[in-house]
Amino acid sequence: MHSFNVELGERSYPIVIGSKLLGDSQYLLPYIRGRQVCVVTNETVAPLYLAQLLDGLSDFDKFDVVELPDGEAFKTLETLNRIFDTLLEQRHNRSTTLIALGGGVVGDMCGFAAACYQRGVDFIQVPTTLLAQVDSSVGGKTGVNHPLGKNMIGAFYQPRLVLADMDTLGTLPEREFSAGIAEVIKYGLICDAPFFHWIESNIDALLIRDPRALAYAVDRCCRDKAEVVASDEREGGRRAILNFGHTFGHAIEAVQGYGRWLHGEAVAAGMVMALELSRLQGGVDSELLERVCNLLQRAQLPQRSPEDMRVDDFLRVMQVDKKVIDGKLRLVLLRALGDAKVVDDTPMEKVMEALRNCGAR
Amino acid sequence: MHSFNVELGERSYPIVIGSKLLGDSQYLLPYIRGRQVCVVTNETVAPLYLAQLLDGLSDFDKFDVVELPDGEAFKTLETLNRIFDTLLEQRHNRSTTLIALGGGVVGDMCGFAAACYQRGVDFIQVPTTLLAQVDSSVGGKTGVNHPLGKNMIGAFYQPRLVLADMDTLGTLPEREFSAGIAEVIKYGLICDAPFFHWIESNIDALLIRDPRALAYAVDRCCRDKAEVVASDEREGGRRAILNFGHTFGHAIEAVQGYGRWLHGEAVAAGMVMALELSRLQGGVDSELLERVCNLLQRAQLPQRSPEDMRVDDFLRVMQVDKKVIDGKLRLVLLRALGDAKVVDDTPMEKVMEALRNCGAR
Repeated sequence: MHSFNVELGERSYPIVIGSKLLGDSQYLLPYIRGRQVCVVTNETVAPLYLAQLLDGLSDFDKFDVVELPDGEAFKTLETLNRIFDTLLEQRHNRSTTLIALGGGVVGDMCGFAAACYQRGVDFIQVPTTLLAQVDSSVGGKTGVNHPLGKNMIGAFYQPRLVLADMDTLGTLPEREFSAGIAEVIKYGLICDAPFFHWIESNIDALLIRDPRALAYAVDRCCRDKAEVVASDEREGGRRAILNFGHTFGHAIEAVQGYGRWLHGEAVAAGMVMALELSRLQGGVDSELLERVCNLLQRAQLPQRSPEDMRVDDFLRVMQVDKKVIDGKLRLVLLRALGDAKVVDDTPMEKVMEALRNCGAR
Repeated sequence: MHSFNVELGERSYPIVIGSKLLGDSQYLLPYIRGRQVCVVTNETVAPLYLAQLLDGLSDFDKFDVVELPDGEAFKTLETLNRIFDTLLEQRHNRSTTLIALGGGVVGDMCGFAAACYQRGVDFIQVPTTLLAQVDSSVGGKTGVNHPLGKNMIGAFYQPRLVLADMDTLGTLPEREFSAGIAEVIKYGLICDAPFFHWIESNIDALLIRDPRALAYAVDRCCRDKAEVVASDEREGGRRAILNFGHTFGHAIEAVQGYGRWLHGEAVAAGMVMALELSRLQGGVDSELLERVCNLLQRAQLPQRSPEDMRVDDFLRVMQVDKKVIDGKLRLVLLRALGDAKVVDDTPMEKVMEALRNCGAR
C-alpha cells in the first residue's frame, strides 16, 4: 500500500493507494466527521462496487446513494441538481460527507456538489478509473460542462481523503483503461523524465494491469501532480503545465461532441500536437515524438487529429478555452523531455502547421 | 463619502459608501483587471441605473449585460445558467469581471456565477437596495435557492470592491426600503447597543431616506458585520449571530413561498420571535421587546407570525435549515441588548411557546 499527504495547509489530505481498500472501512471512517453520508456514483459502477463500500457505512444515521447516468454527456448542471435534490429531500445538513465512487465525471460532479451544498460540505474521492486515480485525485478541480465549453462551471475544492483501490481497475473497459495510460505518459513528459523511462520499460506490465505496476504508476503520478499543484493551488502559473495536450484535446472533445472521444484519447492526440508544435519551435526532436507515438500505439491510443476536423475547428474552440488570456493563446510546450513550460506568444501559423502535420485538414 | 477595507488577507476589499458614485468611473476602474466586463442586473434596476454605470465602461473590449427577471422566485440554478450562457456566448475568459447591479438576489447570483465561472473570476458588488447594502456587501455569501430550501446551493466568495451609492435608494419601493431597515435594527441588537440607541433617535431621518443618515447607518452596519465576519470567514462560530431572527424568518419565507414576504419582513417577525425566546430564557426583558416592536412598527414591518402559519410549519422547515447540526437546533438568542450568543440546546417546548406567543397557531 502506498500513502502520502497532499500538503495544502489546513486543507491537506491523504491519498491511499493499494488493493482491497474498498471493503475495509478503517480507511474511510476516520475521515467522516458527522453522522450522515451520501454516496454519489453511476449506474455502471454501482452494481460492481457500491455494496462493498456501503458495508462499512451501515452505522451512520443516514447513508443515501445518488446513482447518476454514466458518461461525460451527463456532466451538466441538470444532473448536478439531482444530487442537491437527494441531499435536501433526505435532510442532509452541513456536517454531511459526500463520497464520490466512480470515474472523473462522478468525482468532478460530486466534488462540485460538495463545494456548493450549503456553501461547502466534506467529500471523499474513491476513484475507480485509472484516469481519475492519476488525474482527479490531486488538484481540487471540480465542476460540470456547459454546451459551449468543457468544465466551464466549477470550483476549486479539496477532498478530505482519496482512496484509490487498484482492484477497481480490473473491470475497466479497454478504451477507458488506455485513456488513463495517456495521462500517465503525460506526467513523464511534463516533469518526470525518469518516470517516462520507467513507463517505456514497464508498459507491458501496465497494459496487463499488473496491480503492483499500476499502484507504482498511480502513486508516482499523484506525487508529481501534488508537487506541481502545491506551489500553485489556484492555477496562476506553473500548474498550467498539467494542461499539456489539453487545449488541443478539449477542442477535439468539443467538436466531436463530448463522449465520442474519451478525454484521455483526446489528450493523447493533443499531446502529439503539442509535441509537434514543440518540435517546430525547437524544443524537442523527432525521436522523442516517435517514442511517444510508439507508447500511445502500444496502448491503442490515437496519435492524430480526427479525420473530419479542420484546422479552423481547432482554432474556433481554442478561442474560448480557459487558457486564453486577453486574446493571447496560452499553450504548454516541452523544452525537453520532463521539462514543460507555459508559452503565451506562439505564432498562430506554427500552431496551424502543427495541426496540419497531425492530420487536421 | 465613507470608505473602509474589509480585512481578509489577500482577499481584502474596500467598501465605498456615498452619493454620486455610480456615474463616476474612477471608483470602479482600478478594480477591473482585464479587458472584459459583464454587468448582471434585473429588469427593474436596469432602466434606472444601468446607463449611468455603463457610461464609465465603454472603453472595454467587451461589456455585456445580463438582465435577469426580478425577484427571489428567480434565484435558481436555471436563472444562474443564463449568466453562464451569456459569458460563454460572448467568450468571456478568466480575466473577465462581473458587476452585480441590483439587490440581494442579483448580488447573490452574480457572486455565485463569478465563483463558478471557469472556477472563479473577479466580481464587483454595486448594491442598489438598503438590504443588499447593509447585508450582502460583507461576508462573501453567494448562492441560489432550491425548491426545498433557501440559499442551499452556493459558495463563499469575496468581491473585489463594493460600491454603495445612497442615491439608488431614492427609487426603492416602500416595502423594500423597510425590509432593509429590519437588518439595520438587527446590527444594533446583536452587537452594537450604541447604534441601537442611534437608530431609535434617528429613525425619522432614516425613514425619509436622508442620504447622510443612510450613509452613516450603512457604514456602521458594514463595519459591524465586517468585524464579526473577519474573525470567522467560513461560519464556524461567532458569525452565526448574524443569523439572528433568520431561522424563524427563513421558515416564514419557505412556507409562504419565496417572494410573498420580503426577506427583511420575514427577518423582522423572526427577530421578534428570537427576542421572545430570549425573554423566556431570561436573556432580555419585555421592555426591549417593546422598543424593538415600536421601531418595527414605525417602519411598517411585521412583528408577528403570518396568521395562517402553525407552530408545526415552523418546526418542519427549521429541521432542514443549515443551522441544524446533527439533529440539534442551533439558534441565536440575546443575552442583552448588543450581546448575541449561539445556543445549541434550547428546549423545544420553549421554542414552541415563543412561536405561539408571536401568533403562530
